[in-house]
Amino acid sequence: MERLDIAIIGCGPAGLSAAVNAGIRKRSVALLGGELCAPKLQQSTLVNNYLGLPEINGRELRDKFLDHARKAGIPVHQVRVTSVQENGEGGFTVSAGAKLFEARALVLATGVTVQNLIKGEKEYAGKGVGYCATCDGPLYRGKNVAVIAYTREGIEDANFLAEICSRVYLIAGGGLSTEGLKPEVEVIEAGSVQGITGNGFVSGVKIEGKNLPVDGVFIYRETYLPDRLVPGLTVIDNHIQVDRAFATNIKGIYAAGDCTGKPYQLAKAVGEGQIAALNAVKFLER
Amino acid sequence: MERLDIAIIGCGPAGLSAAVNAGIRKRSVALLGGELCAPKLQQSTLVNNYLGLPEINGRELRDKFLDHARKAGIPVHQVRVTSVQENGEGGFTVSAGAKLFEARALVLATGVTVQNLIKGEKEYAGKGVGYCATCDGPLYRGKNVAVIAYTREGIEDANFLAEICSRVYLIAGGGLSTEGLKPEVEVIEAGSVQGITGNGFVSGVKIEGKNLPVDGVFIYRETYLPDRLVPGLTVIDNHIQVDRAFATNIKGIYAAGDCTGKPYQLAKAVGEGQIAALNAVKFLER
Ligand SMILES: Cc1cc2nc3c(=O)[nH]c(=O)nc-3n(C[C@H](O)[C@H](O)[C@H](O)COP(=O)(O)OP(=O)(O)OC[C@H]3O[C@@H](n4cnc5c(N)ncnc54)[C@H](O)[C@@H]3O)c2cc1C
Ligand SMILES: Cc1cc2nc3c(=O)[nH]c(=O)nc-3n(C[C@H](O)[C@H](O)[C@H](O)COP(=O)(O)OP(=O)(O)OC[C@H]3O[C@@H](n4cnc5c(N)ncnc54)[C@H](O)[C@@H]3O)c2cc1C
Repeated sequence: MERLDIAIIGCGPAGLSAAVNAGIRKRSVALLGGELCAPKLQQSTLVNNYLGLPEINGRELRDKFLDHARKAGIPVHQVRVTSVQENGEGGFTVSAGAKLFEARALVLATGVTVQNLIKGEKEYAGKGVGYCATCDGPLYRGKNVAVIAYTREGIEDANFLAEICSRVYLIAGGGLSTEGLKPEVEVIEAGSVQGITGNGFVSGVKIEGKNLPVDGVFIYRETYLPDRLVPGLTVIDNHIQVDRAFATNIKGIYAAGDCTGKPYQLAKAVGEGQIAALNAVKFLER
Repeated sequence: MERLDIAIIGCGPAGLSAAVNAGIRKRSVALLGGELCAPKLQQSTLVNNYLGLPEINGRELRDKFLDHARKAGIPVHQVRVTSVQENGEGGFTVSAGAKLFEARALVLATGVTVQNLIKGEKEYAGKGVGYCATCDGPLYRGKNVAVIAYTREGIEDANFLAEICSRVYLIAGGGLSTEGLKPEVEVIEAGSVQGITGNGFVSGVKIEGKNLPVDGVFIYRETYLPDRLVPGLTVIDNHIQVDRAFATNIKGIYAAGDCTGKPYQLAKAVGEGQIAALNAVKFLER
C-alpha cells in the first residue's frame, strides 16, 4: 500500500503533464498507467500542431514527454487501475490488480475508448455484462460466458474463467493475438459483435446475425468506461463532466485530456493536465 | 485592407498555438500582435512545466514557438489592435492604428494586464478616461490631461496630446523610460496613482494623497481591457467569459490563454489556443 498526495490515472499526454505540474509543486505524485505510456502518440507518424515542436514523429514526441516526467522524478507504475473507492477519510483507494494506492486527490487522464460501445452493453452492465473476471467471475461458475477482448487482459481473464465456467468463448478484436490462450477456450472467428441480447439479464451475444447463447459477457478494452472505474462519477456522452477547474462531481477528483471531451488533441490534453493538477494541489492546501 | 478567415489578436503562446492550429486546417490566418511576441515568456528565466521541453529558458522557448509559427507560414503583423467592430456582414473589422483587417472569425489571445485597474477607472471609462489619444484626444483641445503610461505608446500619445491640450502631465509606471518625451509634457515623479476623481466626469488624479486637477486621463498598458477593445464582450473579473468551446458571448469571437482566466500558465494557454482555433474553423464551416 502506497500513500500519495495525488494519484494520476493514465499516462498519456494529459497524465504526464498533470504529473510534471503537480511534481513542481512538491507533491507526492505517482502515475498509474497501463503497459505502454501514451499509446496513441506512439501510433501517430507526424505531429505538427504541438506548439514548440514542429514536424515531429509521434514516437519521438512520446519520448520527449516521458523524458520530461523522468527528469521531474515522477514514478510511473505500469499497472491498469481496476477500481477507485472513497476511503472514508476524504481520500481514495485505488486498486490496480493486486496493488493498492491511497491518494488524497486524483486526476483521471484515461483518454477515450477507440472502440465503440456494444449495442446492449450499457443496458446490461451489471446484469450479465462485466469488466473484471476476478471480481465477477465466480457468479458464472458452471455457466457459459463470452469474453470480448481488445487487450491482453482479456486473454488472461478468459483463461481464468475457463477454470470455473462450463464454456468460455473468446471474441478477439482490434487484431489482438490469442497467443497463450488455453485450449479450453473456444475462439469465435466469426467477426464483429452486433449486440448483447437478453431479457432483463444477458442471454446471448449476436455475431453476424447469429445468436451465441451465454449467461455473461466480459469486455476488455484499452480504456474502462470512467463511471465503471469510479462509481458515482458523472459522465455525459462517455465524457467525464468537469467544470472550468477540471473538477468532476466528486470532491477531490479532477479529470483532463480526451476523457473530458473533444477535440481529441495533444495540446488540449497537456493544458488540461496542467490545470487539473494545479487545482488538485489547491484542493489539498484547503 | 486585408481579408482573412481568422484574425488572431495577441501573439503570446495562446495566439501562436491558435495560429498554428488554424493554419493546419488551411484557413487564411494572421497574427496581430504588438511589438514583441510573447513578452512574458521573454521574461522568464526557467520554464520546467511545458511538457516535452524540460528545463528551458523562456527566451529559448519563445524562439521555438515563433519558429513553429514561421514554419507553418503564419504571417505575424507587428501592430497593436485598437478596436474591433462587427462589419455588418457577420464578420469583424479589426483596426490596428491606420491598418484595417476584415475577418470572418476572431480569436482573442491578449493575455492579462499585470497592472491592476486604477480606482475610479471603470467608473469614469468614457467619461474622461480614455485609452487612445488619436481617437479621443480632440475632445480635450485646450484642456488639461494626465497620461498614465506603462508602454512606449503612452510617451508617443503624450507628445501628440501636447500639441492640442493646454497642459499634459505624464505619470510613467513600471520603469518606463521617458526618453523622447517633448519638453512641454510635465513629468510627475510623485509615484503611485491612488485613484481617479470626479463627479460624473473626471476632475482629477489622486497621487500620494494630493489631487492633480485634470479634465481627462489617458491610460496605456501592455494590454487593453478586453471589453474596451471589443464592445459588448462579456467580461467577468477582468477575464473574458468563455464556454467549453472557448466561444465568447459574441458569435464568431473565441478567446484563449491568460485572458480567459487563471491559472496563468503556458500549457493552459497553448491548449486553449488550439481548442479556440479548431472551434473557430468549425464555426466557419457552418
Ligand atoms: C493515429 C493518431 C494520430 C494523432 N495525431 C495527432 C496530432 O497530430 N495532433 C494532435 O494534437 N493529436 C493527435 N492525436 C490525438 C492525441 O493522440 C490525443 O488527443 C492524446 O493522446 C490525448 O491524450 P490523453 O492523455 O488524454 O489520452 P491518451 O493519450 O489516450 O492516454 C490515456 C492513457 O491512459 C491509459 N489508461 C486508460 N485507462 C487506464 C486504467 N484504467 N489504468 C491505467 N491506465 C489507463 C491508457 O492506456 C493511455 O496510456 C492522434 C491520435 C491518433 C490515434
Ligand atoms: C516572469 C514570468 C515567468 C513565468 N513562468 C512561467 C512558467 O515557468 N510556466 C508557465 O506555465 N507559465 C509561466 N508564466 C506565465 C506565462 O508566461 C503565461 O501564462 C503565458 O504567457 C500566457 O500566454 P497568453 O498567450 O495567454 O498571453 P501573453 O503571453 O501575455 O501574450 C499576449 C500577447 O498579446 C499581445 N496583445 C495584448 N493586447 C494586444 C492588442 N490590443 N493588440 C495586439 N497585441 C496585443 C501582448 O503584447 C502579448 O504579446 C510566467 C510569466 C511571467 C511573467
